[in-house]
Amino acid sequence: MASEIIELSGHIIDSWTLPRAWDIIMDRGGDFLIQEIQVGKHKSEPSYVRMEIKADDEQTLDLILSELQQLGAMLVNGHDVRTARVEQRGVLPEGFYSTTNLPTQVRLGGQWVDVEHIEMDVAIVIDREHRRAYCKPMHEVEVGDEVVVGHEGIRVQSFERAREREIFAFMQSDVSSEKAKILMIQHIARQMQETRARGGKILFVLGPAVIHTGAGRYVAELIRRGYVQVIFGGNAIVTHDVEAALFGTSLGVDLRTGEQVEGGHRNHLRAINAIRAVGSLEKAVEVGLLREGLIYEAIKHQVPLVLAGSIRDDGPMPGVITDMQEAQRQMRRALPGVEMAIMVASMLHAIATGNLLPATVRTVVVDINPAVVTKLADRGSFQAAGLVTDAELFLRELVEALRHEGAFPDAAGLQAEAGHTQR
Amino acid sequence: MASEIIELSGHIIDSWTLPRAWDIIMDRGGDFLIQEIQVGKHKSEPSYVRMEIKADDEQTLDLILSELQQLGAMLVNGHDVRTARVEQRGVLPEGFYSTTNLPTQVRLGGQWVDVEHIEMDVAIVIDREHRRAYCKPMHEVEVGDEVVVGHEGIRVQSFERAREREIFAFMQSDVSSEKAKILMIQHIARQMQETRARGGKILFVLGPAVIHTGAGRYVAELIRRGYVQVIFGGNAIVTHDVEAALFGTSLGVDLRTGEQVEGGHRNHLRAINAIRAVGSLEKAVEVGLLREGLIYEAIKHQVPLVLAGSIRDDGPMPGVITDMQEAQRQMRRALPGVEMAIMVASMLHAIATGNLLPATVRTVVVDINPAVVTKLADRGSFQAAGLVTDAELFLRELVEALRHEGAFPDAAGLQAEAGHTQR
Amino acid sequence: MASEIIELSGHIIDSWTLPRAWDIIMDRGGDFLIQEIQVGKHKSEPSYVRMEIKADDEQTLDLILSELQQLGAMLVNGHDVRTARVEQRGVLPEGFYSTTNLPTQVRLGGQWVDVEHIEMDVAIVIDREHRRAYCKPMHEVEVGDEVVVGHEGIRVQSFERAREREIFAFMQSDVSSEKAKILMIQHIARQMQETRARGGKILFVLGPAVIHTGAGRYVAELIRRGYVQVIFGGNAIVTHDVEAALFGTSLGVDLRTGEQVEGGHRNHLRAINAIRAVGSLEKAVEVGLLREGLIYEAIKHQVPLVLAGSIRDDGPMPGVITDMQEAQRQMRRALPGVEMAIMVASMLHAIATGNLLPATVRTVVVDINPAVVTKLADRGSFQAAGLVTDAELFLRELVEALRHEGAFPDAAGLQAEAGHTQR
Amino acid sequence: MASEIIELSGHIIDSWTLPRAWDIIMDRGGDFLIQEIQVGKHKSEPSYVRMEIKADDEQTLDLILSELQQLGAMLVNGHDVRTARVEQRGVLPEGFYSTTNLPTQVRLGGQWVDVEHIEMDVAIVIDREHRRAYCKPMHEVEVGDEVVVGHEGIRVQSFERAREREIFAFMQSDVSSEKAKILMIQHIARQMQETRARGGKILFVLGPAVIHTGAGRYVAELIRRGYVQVIFGGNAIVTHDVEAALFGTSLGVDLRTGEQVEGGHRNHLRAINAIRAVGSLEKAVEVGLLREGLIYEAIKHQVPLVLAGSIRDDGPMPGVITDMQEAQRQMRRALPGVEMAIMVASMLHAIATGNLLPATVRTVVVDINPAVVTKLADRGSFQAAGLVTDAELFLRELVEALRHEGAFPDAAGLQAEAGHTQR
Repeated sequence: MASEIIELSGHIIDSWTLPRAWDIIMDRGGDFLIQEIQVGKHKSEPSYVRMEIKADDEQTLDLILSELQQLGAMLVNGHDVRTARVEQRGVLPEGFYSTTNLPTQVRLGGQWVDVEHIEMDVAIVIDREHRRAYCKPMHEVEVGDEVVVGHEGIRVQSFERAREREIFAFMQSDVSSEKAKILMIQHIARQMQETRARGGKILFVLGPAVIHTGAGRYVAELIRRGYVQVIFGGNAIVTHDVEAALFGTSLGVDLRTGEQVEGGHRNHLRAINAIRAVGSLEKAVEVGLLREGLIYEAIKHQVPLVLAGSIRDDGPMPGVITDMQEAQRQMRRALPGVEMAIMVASMLHAIATGNLLPATVRTVVVDINPAVVTKLADRGSFQAAGLVTDAELFLRELVEALRHEGAFPDAAGLQAEAGHTQR
Repeated sequence: MASEIIELSGHIIDSWTLPRAWDIIMDRGGDFLIQEIQVGKHKSEPSYVRMEIKADDEQTLDLILSELQQLGAMLVNGHDVRTARVEQRGVLPEGFYSTTNLPTQVRLGGQWVDVEHIEMDVAIVIDREHRRAYCKPMHEVEVGDEVVVGHEGIRVQSFERAREREIFAFMQSDVSSEKAKILMIQHIARQMQETRARGGKILFVLGPAVIHTGAGRYVAELIRRGYVQVIFGGNAIVTHDVEAALFGTSLGVDLRTGEQVEGGHRNHLRAINAIRAVGSLEKAVEVGLLREGLIYEAIKHQVPLVLAGSIRDDGPMPGVITDMQEAQRQMRRALPGVEMAIMVASMLHAIATGNLLPATVRTVVVDINPAVVTKLADRGSFQAAGLVTDAELFLRELVEALRHEGAFPDAAGLQAEAGHTQR
Repeated sequence: MASEIIELSGHIIDSWTLPRAWDIIMDRGGDFLIQEIQVGKHKSEPSYVRMEIKADDEQTLDLILSELQQLGAMLVNGHDVRTARVEQRGVLPEGFYSTTNLPTQVRLGGQWVDVEHIEMDVAIVIDREHRRAYCKPMHEVEVGDEVVVGHEGIRVQSFERAREREIFAFMQSDVSSEKAKILMIQHIARQMQETRARGGKILFVLGPAVIHTGAGRYVAELIRRGYVQVIFGGNAIVTHDVEAALFGTSLGVDLRTGEQVEGGHRNHLRAINAIRAVGSLEKAVEVGLLREGLIYEAIKHQVPLVLAGSIRDDGPMPGVITDMQEAQRQMRRALPGVEMAIMVASMLHAIATGNLLPATVRTVVVDINPAVVTKLADRGSFQAAGLVTDAELFLRELVEALRHEGAFPDAAGLQAEAGHTQR
Repeated sequence: MASEIIELSGHIIDSWTLPRAWDIIMDRGGDFLIQEIQVGKHKSEPSYVRMEIKADDEQTLDLILSELQQLGAMLVNGHDVRTARVEQRGVLPEGFYSTTNLPTQVRLGGQWVDVEHIEMDVAIVIDREHRRAYCKPMHEVEVGDEVVVGHEGIRVQSFERAREREIFAFMQSDVSSEKAKILMIQHIARQMQETRARGGKILFVLGPAVIHTGAGRYVAELIRRGYVQVIFGGNAIVTHDVEAALFGTSLGVDLRTGEQVEGGHRNHLRAINAIRAVGSLEKAVEVGLLREGLIYEAIKHQVPLVLAGSIRDDGPMPGVITDMQEAQRQMRRALPGVEMAIMVASMLHAIATGNLLPATVRTVVVDINPAVVTKLADRGSFQAAGLVTDAELFLRELVEALRHEGAFPDAAGLQAEAGHTQR
């Protein structure tokens, strides 16, 4: 019989932490004995519980503890974090600890140290000399790296659910197209303003439908207005945006009339070929070849673009990273400072981004397919919200909501410049 | 060996009528011999073909002819339409002709007579005395009714595809969320204006998500502006609209804040109960109980509402027709004069309406689920167009597009009155 | 300041009853003071809590209490249930109590009396003379009926989550097509056997795709084997089943070859007309017109069929109920004894059935569209499970799983008789 | 005014080639004058048309001709193919011809030469010395390559629709879950047998849901039976298959019980780490670490696996190609000899494969999401068929259908070995 004593404290009842803990213990076949419980008599009071966890064997207890840890449980007999050395390049030691995307600390020499740039499903490497702990993906570990193993001396900061009622909570409650999206869009607009006001960065992850539907102009507007600090995308969105800028089409469909003007495939290949001929997207802007569109605005306003390729790509467009590990590396490099992520009509790039984001980043997932939204928004965080809605109309209304909030003090009507000019 | 000679004329190449005819003949195991063919040398010239159709037996020939008929084929040796008497109430005679939703004529005494109020899958009854032909559903035929049988003396006016390129054609091309919807919405707005300008009626078929998403206000606006002449819906939309008007909620969700204010189920039952207590929706408006919302505006502006029930209904709300045959009858009665139908976030009522509409009515189907749009828009007509998009944002943009087109000459900004008042 | 003292007991921690209670209180703006709490030290021990609930006003307190009631909360100062008389036919008294689908009791003369045939969203009528309480839908209440109002003297038996791990729980956890369905189908087969072994009835709710996909034969097999006691459906399924039996087609598609044999619409109208001519489905079996198919087997094996119409119906087929309130009445009448409900490829009829079923009936919802499964399976009960899968292959595998479990002791291979005969 | 004379011949009416040609001409604003037309009097006779195509300018004419070419149109005044030299590495010359996936020939020295390994959206390079023409993607062209430009001297072999009615045609007709899938699966099984009988290769493109649903065993069975010659997949499917083989779970869900056994993320990382430790998948089989599953069988039976990575990957597993251009290259290398492609529950890899496959490869796309099937099956070929159905049940029934067809002469019942062993 294996056992361990843990503590949970804070708004553990309000945030369903305690019942989830009980659930885990029983689901995994363990048992618990409450040694002390203090339930906050009022909602403003924190609660506290100390429990002995028991299981038939050490392995089961380990599983239970590793899951409780993600809820913020701490072992009472707190030892330092345990580590092991990497002995083979790109291979983790037995029993390696794999991270969650929640803020995490490790105990080094009796003191808690933050794990830097936390992300999901990676290892924690300890740098004892500088008292640092940071994340490393499996394929980047080097021989000699000191990697965290087991579950002692690790503290995960579970989310406490915000008690004030807020629309993010409402958006999370379930994924359905039958909800009032205007309300949510207005809320997102307000969050964007607050994020920018405190200097936080906003990341957009964009799929090619943004261009096909003619919604690139709204993102361009957001870039001009300072609401986009980083863009993640792929070969398709940049290709179609350049195609739109050079030929007025997206996959051969005229974006002003909606008509198929031509075979279509030729235009996107011609667009790629034209940029390849000048050498880069930046050069194409410089020489005046590329004069409008989302990519043009991003380059003009020095918004970093990380363009990650995939096996379905034609071309590719210069600037698209064809090695996936390099692409992940550049995405990681662009993330510090990002406080809000808006993912629109993207699946591959959105999932990839979701894997890298800490849970503290407010994430909005917009797609017309409820299965995509469910998959993306359901990453175990209170910070991700999903909208099952139309990408084009979402972006249009988002621009409108920001304008209405006074975010564009000098702006004339959007309609005039964007939506209604095609006669 | 059975054979028959038919003619096809008009833009039969342009509209793919001729190849479709060949296709049918061969798919059904028949054969054809071209007796005369004149292909319009230019696109403005009509074409003409006379063919002998052959099949192994009369039954196969009959099948082929009945399908060719729907493409506009005419038998050369044109006899009068054949009929048989109904001998049993609600039962059609053997070999009855079942209609398409295309404009149809029958030959009576050597002359072509229009079939009145054509709709799909019903019988044609002949009134020789008044030289009339009209539709009757199976369950309404009476003993002695003279019903069309076979396929002689029947002429169906096939659609000729409009050559000028138009957005309706584009919208029909395929059902996808990855198309520029603003373009389509602006086109629909223009169609609505043209329809109203020539005195045509516009029918809205609405599902309850219109209310849940807070989009009822946009329909209310369209009613006030004279863009809604008939509404078809069910118990749910009226219940949730009244719930919204009386309690500010839809299924218990506060439409101003997006929060669940209460158990929810109680509010919709309370709404129904309140209207039942005063007796009718009209009375509720009269006594001042119902003072806003889509239903209120419809009653104030004398827009006919046909509310057809279903087995999933609670209540029902007074005014909801619980007998399905009576509901169909009232829907039929409301259709004359309708030239455009806009179906939003509805499946049951939209399919039912689609069954009753002649193919000449321009139909727009809007739903976020592509399967619903495909099912509804694909009714064999060049007049139905589908948008895979968000019902709420569609209606919002439709109002905006109409305003922008100058359809609301006196109107202040919609934002002020509608979308942004909830602070 | 309004307050009331309530008790919760049982596996209230395990079943998340207590945290949900706290959640409700705080979401609704109330407060609570724990007077006594006993947490079961082990998972086998029940827990108990007594709390004082406070709110700013009586109305808020009422809301909180009515929601807590659904979790099984009991007021400590237990009065008898309160009632009011119906004064207007079909209209409930102010403050009426609307039911959940959970087992419910009311206190009459200090004693708890079960509410008979509980279903959702209806009123409870008290018959003091016979000490009975039963459900009545709003439109059926008569002047003088004594209807329950408020929330005193009502006890709702909340579900306690079964602690033994079971596949139903697993199926409920989330709706996804990416789960091992064979496991679930085998589990359902075992549940069906157990249900039949103890004399429980199994209800099938079927949509027309069951016939279109050729899966009618599997349901026919289940009827022959005694695994179907009640069938709910609509005009479409019966029409297409009869079409298949008479003409070998479904919507004109040959079920043996998959080819469109003809215009299609004619066959389904001919099928309806043929049954109308003999008078009824039963008569059609009797005279030898209908000799195979799902409906034939149901009639032969005296399985009650409740066929509820809708406004999209052609015909309708004799036996289809066109009045919705009558249809609901007949559905209610067929439910006693039903312990398991299997809903396949149906939306309208499945929702309607879901509204009438008590939460104690094990419900399985099968549809290829995840949105339908989510909508149907998510009715607040631990007893509903959803499978996002193919209706045809589900039914085929269900028959196979029952056979494999030895449920068809004398059966030769299914393949021979069903799936592989079409050469 | 620009003009050109073209010829079309063969079953151009039957296959709708002629009307599509007229359509293109008129849609693009051109005009035509029929110089000679011979319509086959019977369906077995080929037809012939010679037309003059006119347009306002050369550019429009070019567009029309390039589209007509894809229908098999030939310029009467046939010149040799025109070419231009590549002057910049990875950049195509102005006016480059981009391929379709249809069989294509170019005229060299007056004679028609087949373009080798045709695929879509690439350039054609001419090797005059060896009288060869072959495809090259844009990024692989080298300075000096002689690339085809314009549209002269190119002949595309359009598909003629098979007149015998066949289930592939039926499967293509529309994408719907409401069709009889058993019929289609049996047809696919027969196609697979025929393909193998004539020595053709069968390619499987597989998504991770194949493993999550426990359907890996059916693919393993197909490998053992010789029905899989090439596999394309990604990091996820191989990781989850290895996880299943090593730990019995897929994403942490026990495949025998359907229960979540543990945090889950750890198991897939442990699986990757274990294979990284031994060095490769092949080595893992050799040393006895990997002893069952789809990957094990593929390695044992020497079925080539091309595993293409993506940015969402963890790990990655050894053998997964992280550079996208290298991955495409290896996919291309594995394609020769492939005559049938079966794509199950994959989107990214299926699209990528679709881009590389010639239109002559019979392609079956299986997914439960109709949008995915539509996107993939609709690649302008008569050879792609889509099934909206469950991946797991599809594969299970496919194995069953092959067994029933006698494809596994010695095989005992599948149920015993696969589906029903988990007690």
